[in-house]
Amino acid sequence: MTVMRADALALDRADPLAAFRDRFALPDGVIYLDGNSLGALPKATAGRLAGLVATEWGGDLIRSWTKHGWIDLPLRVGDKIARLIGARPGEVAVADSTSVNLFKLMAAALRLRPDRRVIVSDVGNFPTDLYVAQGLVELLGFRHELRLVAPNDLAGALDRDVALVSLTEVDYRSGRLHDMADITRRVHAAGALMLWDLAHTAGALPVDLAGCEVDFAVGCGYKYLNGGPGAPAFLYVAERLHGEFRPPLTGWLGHASPFAFETGYRPAGGIARAIVGTPPILSLAALEVGVDIALEADMAEIRRKSLALSRLFIDCVAQECAGLGLTLASPSREAERGSQVSYSHPEGYAVMQALIARGVIGDFRAPDLLRFGLTPLYVRFADIWDAVVILREVLATREWDRPEFKKRAAVT
Amino acid sequence: MTVMRADALALDRADPLAAFRDRFALPDGVIYLDGNSLGALPKATAGRLAGLVATEWGGDLIRSWTKHGWIDLPLRVGDKIARLIGARPGEVAVADSTSVNLFKLMAAALRLRPDRRVIVSDVGNFPTDLYVAQGLVELLGFRHELRLVAPNDLAGALDRDVALVSLTEVDYRSGRLHDMADITRRVHAAGALMLWDLAHTAGALPVDLAGCEVDFAVGCGYKYLNGGPGAPAFLYVAERLHGEFRPPLTGWLGHASPFAFETGYRPAGGIARAIVGTPPILSLAALEVGVDIALEADMAEIRRKSLALSRLFIDCVAQECAGLGLTLASPSREAERGSQVSYSHPEGYAVMQALIARGVIGDFRAPDLLRFGLTPLYVRFADIWDAVVILREVLATREWDRPEFKKRAAVT
Repeated sequence: MTVMRADALALDRADPLAAFRDRFALPDGVIYLDGNSLGALPKATAGRLAGLVATEWGGDLIRSWTKHGWIDLPLRVGDKIARLIGARPGEVAVADSTSVNLFKLMAAALRLRPDRRVIVSDVGNFPTDLYVAQGLVELLGFRHELRLVAPNDLAGALDRDVALVSLTEVDYRSGRLHDMADITRRVHAAGALMLWDLAHTAGALPVDLAGCEVDFAVGCGYKYLNGGPGAPAFLYVAERLHGEFRPPLTGWLGHASPFAFETGYRPAGGIARAIVGTPPILSLAALEVGVDIALEADMAEIRRKSLALSRLFIDCVAQECAGLGLTLASPSREAERGSQVSYSHPEGYAVMQALIARGVIGDFRAPDLLRFGLTPLYVRFADIWDAVVILREVLATREWDRPEFKKRAAVT
Repeated sequence: MTVMRADALALDRADPLAAFRDRFALPDGVIYLDGNSLGALPKATAGRLAGLVATEWGGDLIRSWTKHGWIDLPLRVGDKIARLIGARPGEVAVADSTSVNLFKLMAAALRLRPDRRVIVSDVGNFPTDLYVAQGLVELLGFRHELRLVAPNDLAGALDRDVALVSLTEVDYRSGRLHDMADITRRVHAAGALMLWDLAHTAGALPVDLAGCEVDFAVGCGYKYLNGGPGAPAFLYVAERLHGEFRPPLTGWLGHASPFAFETGYRPAGGIARAIVGTPPILSLAALEVGVDIALEADMAEIRRKSLALSRLFIDCVAQECAGLGLTLASPSREAERGSQVSYSHPEGYAVMQALIARGVIGDFRAPDLLRFGLTPLYVRFADIWDAVVILREVLATREWDRPEFKKRAAVT
């Protein structure tokens, strides 16, 4: 059956999330399929920031820490994110970057399993997750080890030396979705702890951290949560571990009584001990705006639309781009797919630059992947159709085969 | 000789920095003497943030990382701060919080002195500096030790076990200024490395990190640099250590080739390896506005005015508040004084609340300190006179002796 643009328009008319698009400021002439790298700008963010700057910082100055609740932001926004990822109140804090939070939780996990010495991850994990583990192992004097396995080869690695398994739920390249419940169960059965990186999950699909009995998680504020460039990250620790959990970055805002200015560190209760230094309030307030919008949507509805978008994308590419060199790099089974579709192409870098020049913004990931993020709150079905038509033209006419598209920038 | 308000007004008329006050948005009816806790709002910040949000994030979206140089911000703003603290280009990066940066540098220092096991600090250091060292020592299995000495008792602690001495140049309570050149020299003579926390220094007085041959430094963006609440912090590593310096927080933006997405960590060259995760761009851009203003002023002029402000404050208090229970807690010698004056008072907490209710905003630090920050870019000599007159009234009438001023808030 042939897909037509009219079919996409019909899907848009029936979309229960369609009204959310108007909550975002999207530029004309752009089809934005990179919300998994930097989420779009909520229209409410500019006003929130202007008020924060003029009234709170400028007008009330230092008094705003209490008067406007700045001091509560890390836990307040954390509790909001908790509702998006199936965590309980008090289990999530916003703090630092994803990388720094990984360090805190990996180190804390090793302390909880002092008789074990291995962190397991998969070779396809996002590099920072691997780098942080490498840095920690090196800091601890190589008494520990980072063991890397193929993404589907976890079972063989789970021996009695394993203290922690650290995985990203949705692969940043292929969009492959791990089975959180099953893997967490197997890791626990082996006596190890489980850390999930939700960078490509939070705000994009339902997560049930509590139901899966996940021990630790981290996640990103600037992708599907639309918190702005470099928005602070979040971290989750299951309540049952709050008593014994000891992060190694012990800063004053994680102290039981920060404003007593004691000489000795005493950890705050619960997740608050994972807060370290003074949080970047401007960036944190912008994150809250994005999180508040996500909370208005039904996460099951987001997942339904996300899968419908990726299904349409794959169907359209199959119909329009056959024989033009694209190979689907995302799982064809929907249960295994996150909120993106990726294709490999031998000239992937140049093809993506040509697409961007035409206003279709996805991104390129080495060695040869075209990556298209599908953000249900603001991507329309018609956008998918239009993007694939442009993709076909770029490929069919070899529009990508120009020097300016082949020259690699430092950042892609 | 009696000080009169007219004397303060004359000093303001002769002040070469007077025009800078107009660059800040300060509320009416407030004398702001807490810029050492949260710097005031530069008028240019609102416009910079509005443009960043609307044009860069909203309009150019992911492309802004290159098109608007977001990716360069940590090193670009770092190079600007370097000019304020006597560092060379390429020696300073903006990243994370002061606490997280302390962890990176303390751990790196211990690796550079593997045959030594002690970090020395003073009991008056800001708590987070001590907490971070405690957390690091604990993480490393107590093979190391944090040795605390009295602030003036460093010499006796410098034995052959000492790997690192970590001090804050200006004491956050008393404003006492350490002799950076002399202490660094003595620490080096003992074979140890030196880390200076410039939280209450950067933007407030001249610093000569290169001239003093300092090894490591950290500092704060939201005090005298006017970068906004929780602005990112900075860190400095002397160029001669760039080859062997290994921070333990190894994130993707500190990788030699972040966008190659390699599986193994390879440190970036120079200070860039101290960057970890994606920086909070909104907060970082706001910091740059504050730093740019500081760069327009002459740091020697800032120091001259700072000392003139504190001299006037001390003289006015001596004249107006004699017998009212205040004891100067800052050094009387100017060479030993940072950019604040502190007084102890048995009812310090309530006195400060009464002052704040009257629009004189300083802050309280346990157990009994009234702390007044003197920020030469926007505090006038007449403000000092007016603040001391109000202080006298609050004390002479026991205005502080009301229940609402004695009730302690969680945050002060």
